[in-house]
Amino acid sequence: MNEIKLFCPATIANLSCGFDVLGLCLETAGDEMIVRKSTEKGVRIIKIDGADLPLETEKNVAGVAALAMLEQIDSPFGFEIEIYKRIKAGSGIGSSAASSAGAVFGINELLDNPFTRKELVLFAMQGEKLASGNAHADNVAPALLGGFTLVRSSSPLDIVKIPSPIDLYATVVHPQIELKTSDARSVLKQTVSLKSAITQWGNVGGLVAGLYTQDYELIGRSLHDEIVEPLRSVLIPGFDLIKKSAYTNGALGSGISGSGPSIFALSKGLETANAVAKGMSKVYDEMNLPYEIHVSKVNDEGIKII
Amino acid sequence: MNEIKLFCPATIANLSCGFDVLGLCLETAGDEMIVRKSTEKGVRIIKIDGADLPLETEKNVAGVAALAMLEQIDSPFGFEIEIYKRIKAGSGIGSSAASSAGAVFGINELLDNPFTRKELVLFAMQGEKLASGNAHADNVAPALLGGFTLVRSSSPLDIVKIPSPIDLYATVVHPQIELKTSDARSVLKQTVSLKSAITQWGNVGGLVAGLYTQDYELIGRSLHDEIVEPLRSVLIPGFDLIKKSAYTNGALGSGISGSGPSIFALSKGLETANAVAKGMSKVYDEMNLPYEIHVSKVNDEGIKII
Repeated sequence: MNEIKLFCPATIANLSCGFDVLGLCLETAGDEMIVRKSTEKGVRIIKIDGADLPLETEKNVAGVAALAMLEQIDSPFGFEIEIYKRIKAGSGIGSSAASSAGAVFGINELLDNPFTRKELVLFAMQGEKLASGNAHADNVAPALLGGFTLVRSSSPLDIVKIPSPIDLYATVVHPQIELKTSDARSVLKQTVSLKSAITQWGNVGGLVAGLYTQDYELIGRSLHDEIVEPLRSVLIPGFDLIKKSAYTNGALGSGISGSGPSIFALSKGLETANAVAKGMSKVYDEMNLPYEIHVSKVNDEGIKII
Repeated sequence: MNEIKLFCPATIANLSCGFDVLGLCLETAGDEMIVRKSTEKGVRIIKIDGADLPLETEKNVAGVAALAMLEQIDSPFGFEIEIYKRIKAGSGIGSSAASSAGAVFGINELLDNPFTRKELVLFAMQGEKLASGNAHADNVAPALLGGFTLVRSSSPLDIVKIPSPIDLYATVVHPQIELKTSDARSVLKQTVSLKSAITQWGNVGGLVAGLYTQDYELIGRSLHDEIVEPLRSVLIPGFDLIKKSAYTNGALGSGISGSGPSIFALSKGLETANAVAKGMSKVYDEMNLPYEIHVSKVNDEGIKII
């Protein structure tokens, strides 16, 4: 095998109660990448389609993730990478994570898999560090492992994959505004009330329990965030209306995807997820705000060869 | 059936990361109670053995819990209660919860079970309110439901029972000092850092995941508390030495039971739990501090008729 073509999935981090620890993987939204062996050693990004991103290896998240990996293993050959971006940068559904995960997954395949998917997370996190200044795993983990992931600890890294209930679908709407991760970070408070923190960890426990027991109602009741959402949602136009329409149309829960501006909802069944998408679209149509919208089963497999 | 005899189990609340939301039920530590129908309506505590507690119904946690229940249902007869206390008040292993749970469970049985065990939690919480001023469920829920319980929300009450992994054992040592719940509460801070809160909810997620997947190592890694334990442990003599000896002897994790002063450890297998008990005993023996110690499988059944 000299080259492989990959689907690099979009991901939803945080999931209301699980700020900085939870994420899930999407099936119908994602980039494509081609990773190819080359006689010239090292890593070259030779093509980026669909986005204006740097080709220089050291300035590209995929390049940086690949280099972090190749520091840990001798490769008899080098790699060329082509990136076909379909996820917009700054959308809040893991654009940089998809590229970082794709690079390390593709190289690992071409090297006959010296690393497990879980081990690849650590390398892909270096791409996230370049993108946001913070080597976080809450998007690269679900992109690589699929389903839901819990980052129990980021140092040392300890990731738990949680299989998705079979009938769980996500709707994600991306209002076409720019919201910098740094701005979304700056509104956070460094302390929280003990009472809210207890509510939050009760909900994290509830969400994890709901996923293992396929209890959709419990999943819904647990999708609640009284710490980050109140601070960040004001940066997202129409947030309250979108969330309300998600519930009206039968969603289990709804909140900010990653650091925004995308807004997600989870639903039981495709039909409900589509109805939620229709309702969200109507809200932004009436506001004359351009948007993209995705409806996707939760992708239990993660990144894959296509 | 005119009377029943009950085993009312001791419980461990909080479990390190799960302050105010998690608890587990013990099998070999607990009170006994007899609940009997009487022609005279109402509730009477006619005997308390092993503790100096009020017999007046309105001043006794079992009485108050029973009255809360009987407000919701008409009973054609009244009830007499005998309490054989084996769990010391103020031990931090759910003494008041055992009595509260026993009263409502016993009456429910004699009334042919009009309420589910989960519904009984709400009544038993009224006993906790009398005992500590706070109608919390983190001991009465595991006492009634068995296994592990997660109080996802206390208002409205939303409790998730999590079955215990088959080989999970608890060791609990109770140093014979007095530690008032009010004192243990007073050392808490009303705000916590966002960073510590994230660590804590990552661990709650990890613990719940570990319980569902019977991943003992993950359970162990998740038994960590950087919010409450550092503040409360200073009130407990020898805490650091006890905890260290628990790990030395192979425990998965160790922390404060409830609001203390008891200290718990969880272990895989009875042999390890016994070794942990031996190590803990040695620490308190060398300090010349009197103590009681329990080794118990996690009790997946909860309160039961004997």
